[in-house]
Amino acid sequence: MTEQHQQALDFLEHCRAQVDAELDRCIDQTSASDRLQEAMRYSVLGGGKRIRPALCMAAAKVVGSSDAALAPACSVELVHAYSLIHDDLPAMDDDDLRRGRPTAHIAFDEATAILAGDALQALAFHCLADNASVTESARLAMVRELAMASGHAGMVGGQAIDLESVGKTLTLSELETMHRHKTGALIEASVRMGALTSPNVSETTLAALSNYARALGLAFQVQDDLLDIEGDTEVIGKPQGSDAARDKPTYPALLGIDGARAHLKQLLASAHESLAGFGPEAGPLRAMADYVVERTH
Amino acid sequence: MTEQHQQALDFLEHCRAQVDAELDRCIDQTSASDRLQEAMRYSVLGGGKRIRPALCMAAAKVVGSSDAALAPACSVELVHAYSLIHDDLPAMDDDDLRRGRPTAHIAFDEATAILAGDALQALAFHCLADNASVTESARLAMVRELAMASGHAGMVGGQAIDLESVGKTLTLSELETMHRHKTGALIEASVRMGALTSPNVSETTLAALSNYARALGLAFQVQDDLLDIEGDTEVIGKPQGSDAARDKPTYPALLGIDGARAHLKQLLASAHESLAGFGPEAGPLRAMADYVVERTH
Repeated sequence: MTEQHQQALDFLEHCRAQVDAELDRCIDQTSASDRLQEAMRYSVLGGGKRIRPALCMAAAKVVGSSDAALAPACSVELVHAYSLIHDDLPAMDDDDLRRGRPTAHIAFDEATAILAGDALQALAFHCLADNASVTESARLAMVRELAMASGHAGMVGGQAIDLESVGKTLTLSELETMHRHKTGALIEASVRMGALTSPNVSETTLAALSNYARALGLAFQVQDDLLDIEGDTEVIGKPQGSDAARDKPTYPALLGIDGARAHLKQLLASAHESLAGFGPEAGPLRAMADYVVERTH
Repeated sequence: MTEQHQQALDFLEHCRAQVDAELDRCIDQTSASDRLQEAMRYSVLGGGKRIRPALCMAAAKVVGSSDAALAPACSVELVHAYSLIHDDLPAMDDDDLRRGRPTAHIAFDEATAILAGDALQALAFHCLADNASVTESARLAMVRELAMASGHAGMVGGQAIDLESVGKTLTLSELETMHRHKTGALIEASVRMGALTSPNVSETTLAALSNYARALGLAFQVQDDLLDIEGDTEVIGKPQGSDAARDKPTYPALLGIDGARAHLKQLLASAHESLAGFGPEAGPLRAMADYVVERTH
């Protein structure tokens, strides 16, 4: 294991502890239904690497305000968790297993899973609006970022493209468009919201961080596709080859395994290049980039 | 038809025209998937009385800032529309018909319906954050109101209670708890967000309007239950008796038809009483209250 990789793992662990405690607190607010709350908790606090929250907190370090990033870090994880619940539903990907455990609609029931996802989305926006450690302008900018990144122009739109693409042959450009929406938009929002914790963040800094996040978002997906072929079920938490079995378009299917690996390397280089103007304050972002392409699950 | 009723119809019509034009504009923003966007448009712009937006705009009239209420009025309608799509799903109420047309999952497919609902929720928060006609503080207060009213402590929580109550005998108090969450919270948020358009709205005014909205929210539900028994399919847009057929708890089942009518009358009186401290500026809210209990669909 490289030193960078260990740094990333330490940073992830540090973020995870803070984020999990805060998520626990958020979900503890009075709920109308115990069962619903239990399903929310099951889905949010049942593991997960917390890559998006860590990216948010790493970007906040670049602008020197990492303490203020806890709320946006939680909000992206809440949106990510809701999207996983809904993506796993029988009408969508119909997955029974997630992170090595039964998916929410198996552990509870389909109606409760749909509602838990809906409630988690609302909670994400509540977290942002309630974040007293940043200015009102910053909070509103974050609500806009998250809404755009998670809605029809972002993540949900990407999932719709994904469903429409099953069984089709996509070009590389079409595949990238899908991933830029489906997973890239939320990763970019995670990084941008981290930077927006500073009231003085410049457009140049935001643009550089957006470039970093866009490259990293695609790299993340290429590595996911490679792991789906190469990984084993126990480590990746879902049946190996499950994407290919569903006839979903993947990078290795389009570029070959070696081609996909070369593409991944280019994207990683591009992510690092975007950070060239920053000093050691971007260390966690650099370590996270290496981690994303080196991870084995 | 009374003069009040005609006033309410005129006000509803006035609001509907403005709200529909603005909703159309919101959904027109770039989307990643044409089919998803079409499903959103189908669900939001396929009719509906726009009672919640009208309540929002009527409350804004009380504080003298009705022009600023268009964005929150749209946001509550977007949340309402998303909740109808999800409530109609096979795993939830399994309804094929809504407002006299096929429900979203019938007109499109289940996956698209789930995603359209998800995207509409995100759009609702985007509308609020983007509303340049009110202060940043007011925008954030509205995001908080909508998130609380629509999430696990509000609407979604109420829908979860509803699903857990099928086949059970509820007390009047349990039935009210369910409705206060399921429909009441969003109606109250509609009114409160209308009032929050004014930067100077007092706690007293907010409290009076909240009392009005809480009474009206319950009255709305009692009238819905009565219409489900007394109305006919063509007018109410769904099969008559469909709630009773699903063994859902209703006011008439608990109180009898006459008892439910008496309860409705009390709630209406209580709504009017809450407005006693206001002058003619509360005319639209008064007219809306009468309209809600006199409507035939």
